[in-house]
Amino acid sequence: MALVVQKYGGTSVGTVEKIRNVARRVAKTFDDGNDVVVIVSAMAGETNRLVALADDICEFPSEREYDVLVSTGEQVTIALLSMCLQSMGYNAKSYLGSQIPVRTDNDHSRARIKSIDDKKVREDLKSGTIIIVAGFQGIDEHGNVTTLGRGGSDTSAVAVAAALNADVCEIYTDVDGVYTTDPRMVPEASKIEKISYEEMLEMASLGAKVLQIRSVEFAKKYNVVIHVRSSFNDKPGTLVMKEDQEMETVLVSGIAYNKDEAKVSVLGVPDQPGIAAKIFTPLGEAGITVDMIIQNVSRDGKTDLTFTVPKADCKKALKIVEEAAPTIGAEGVAHNEAISKVSIIGVGMRSHAGIAQTMFETLSKEGINIEMISTSEIKVSCVIDSKYTELAVRVLHAAFGLDNPTSVE
Amino acid sequence: MALVVQKYGGTSVGTVEKIRNVARRVAKTFDDGNDVVVIVSAMAGETNRLVALADDICEFPSEREYDVLVSTGEQVTIALLSMCLQSMGYNAKSYLGSQIPVRTDNDHSRARIKSIDDKKVREDLKSGTIIIVAGFQGIDEHGNVTTLGRGGSDTSAVAVAAALNADVCEIYTDVDGVYTTDPRMVPEASKIEKISYEEMLEMASLGAKVLQIRSVEFAKKYNVVIHVRSSFNDKPGTLVMKEDQEMETVLVSGIAYNKDEAKVSVLGVPDQPGIAAKIFTPLGEAGITVDMIIQNVSRDGKTDLTFTVPKADCKKALKIVEEAAPTIGAEGVAHNEAISKVSIIGVGMRSHAGIAQTMFETLSKEGINIEMISTSEIKVSCVIDSKYTELAVRVLHAAFGLDNPTSVE
Repeated sequence: MALVVQKYGGTSVGTVEKIRNVARRVAKTFDDGNDVVVIVSAMAGETNRLVALADDICEFPSEREYDVLVSTGEQVTIALLSMCLQSMGYNAKSYLGSQIPVRTDNDHSRARIKSIDDKKVREDLKSGTIIIVAGFQGIDEHGNVTTLGRGGSDTSAVAVAAALNADVCEIYTDVDGVYTTDPRMVPEASKIEKISYEEMLEMASLGAKVLQIRSVEFAKKYNVVIHVRSSFNDKPGTLVMKEDQEMETVLVSGIAYNKDEAKVSVLGVPDQPGIAAKIFTPLGEAGITVDMIIQNVSRDGKTDLTFTVPKADCKKALKIVEEAAPTIGAEGVAHNEAISKVSIIGVGMRSHAGIAQTMFETLSKEGINIEMISTSEIKVSCVIDSKYTELAVRVLHAAFGLDNPTSVE
Repeated sequence: MALVVQKYGGTSVGTVEKIRNVARRVAKTFDDGNDVVVIVSAMAGETNRLVALADDICEFPSEREYDVLVSTGEQVTIALLSMCLQSMGYNAKSYLGSQIPVRTDNDHSRARIKSIDDKKVREDLKSGTIIIVAGFQGIDEHGNVTTLGRGGSDTSAVAVAAALNADVCEIYTDVDGVYTTDPRMVPEASKIEKISYEEMLEMASLGAKVLQIRSVEFAKKYNVVIHVRSSFNDKPGTLVMKEDQEMETVLVSGIAYNKDEAKVSVLGVPDQPGIAAKIFTPLGEAGITVDMIIQNVSRDGKTDLTFTVPKADCKKALKIVEEAAPTIGAEGVAHNEAISKVSIIGVGMRSHAGIAQTMFETLSKEGINIEMISTSEIKVSCVIDSKYTELAVRVLHAAFGLDNPTSVE
């Protein structure tokens, strides 16, 4: 007998009929002899409806009251799913974040989980009860309702799985698992059977939106095995877990891309200590996340400093940089929003040489110019002209043998 | 400086615009130098929407989960009203039943309040904060969410007012106050300035639906002054309070009627001890509330036993009585749904003679036959043919001087 934690997102519980489907799936897992704890999101559309009410009331709703408001979405779902299971003859019991309790810090609307009490849930499991937990919510030390931010139900699920030392945390979604790349872009993309936490973190941060990053960080920290799978079929999905030897035999696990960044260059900067700080400190203070940073070798005591920021922050970043430029003696500022970042990811890179080179050659063969490069232990990212995004992803997918995953190596 | 508790029902907070109106009224009360605690219901229609979801899921939802579901309605309102007050520059803070906490028994969906902790609320009031409390909800000793049943927000408001020893509990509604009778039936009906708890309880139990009965019982027990008034104007409404001398000078305070009862007669019953028990015990066990009971004097050792039950329970009651009739040697069972109960109510009856007689004569003058009579210290009720209801109410309203309240006595 295993302890299975399952998480169903908003689209999986979007209607009464879909909640019935989820109940049947939960019941089957229970009938198979498992203890089952289910974490659910708000019904699809419900959170948006609540946010629209808040927007109607005032421009800048207080975050404390915002959390009181939006946390009702999950509360509705846990009650309906529990009722449904009960009507099918099962013992089921709903838990709000405040009832378990899921303790968080008091950073409303983006709170972080500090601890989860497993006492009541364990007692109920012992008595053969299926537990339904409201995702996305918790309480702070003063009993205020908090929420974890959009997608927080994934994190709730992994945290509950960690607290209960569950055998697996199944995250149900509307896709079959994690793919070697975006299947809408590359029809040859295939489902990955197993992927390490580190690879999944890179995939997620590069725009693969299957799992929320914080939930993967949590899973990594507490060694929770995540099984990403579809709520619409019974096929096995992708296991996100601790790296194993098998994973290392694969050169590249996936190709990710991100079209949401823009490139900013500060040109002809005197190559002196302290210059970078004068650029990046005000950007940080303005809450702008800088991703890649490249500084070329200096010629005649001058250098170019190039970095990427989220496209949505590009205007704000330009204004800050243009103000700072004269004070550091820079010759000018340039920017380009028509870029994209294409990345290859794989723990196999650690033990295989020549992978970056293969990437550069593959892009070069198609005449795609590489504007920026950044690397980590398990990732190589190249910034290219955005019009080549699809082409680059496709040729890289083929070059690293992902079009037919059984032939890898 | 006074401590004012205000309660706004579902129609008063039915839209974002109406919530803004409520916020302005709350703010004005605060600006006038009062401490303010506000109790709100779910936005009109919201509870029905949630109940419909439960009905869609299953036929007999568990009451525990039902409470988890429907309590979200008030939670949405407290967040929106708090946000609105904050955007107007006021300190406001919402409280769920579980946060105060409002402790209840565990009788889900009709729980009774056991205690209310005033500590946190008092601290917040001291710091100049307007408190917004979710009506209708509480928690039991195990931390389960409970609700008080429909209309329970009135009871929440009175209970909070009692716990805080508030100066007044203002119940805002869509009418101007409590009337001498139904103004839709008698245009001459006038608003009552002051009414005693006892009279209000009789009015409420007889179908005047301005206040929930339990809230009046609570107010009576803890001596909370209730001010029933309209949320759409600034006119003073009706004070529901402890009986005073002024009230006793009025013969009759109001005329109530109830068309929701049916009459059942058990005919030719042997006049022996234990017969009544054989009829009323099974009715009680079936959860049927019997209101008036009349037993005529016996002729030839036989008597007729007549009683009223809610019309909705009439069929069920008949089945039970028809089964019991042969076992007690009754000659037959008759029933009539075309009846109504008309009542005169007033604490003045205690000290004035001849009031019942005036009632009987007034009805008789119009040719209205009285089928049953029951009296209490402050009430006389007559069951009549339902087609005469409006006529009876009108002539009684005139006969007891209520058409022009200034001329009473």
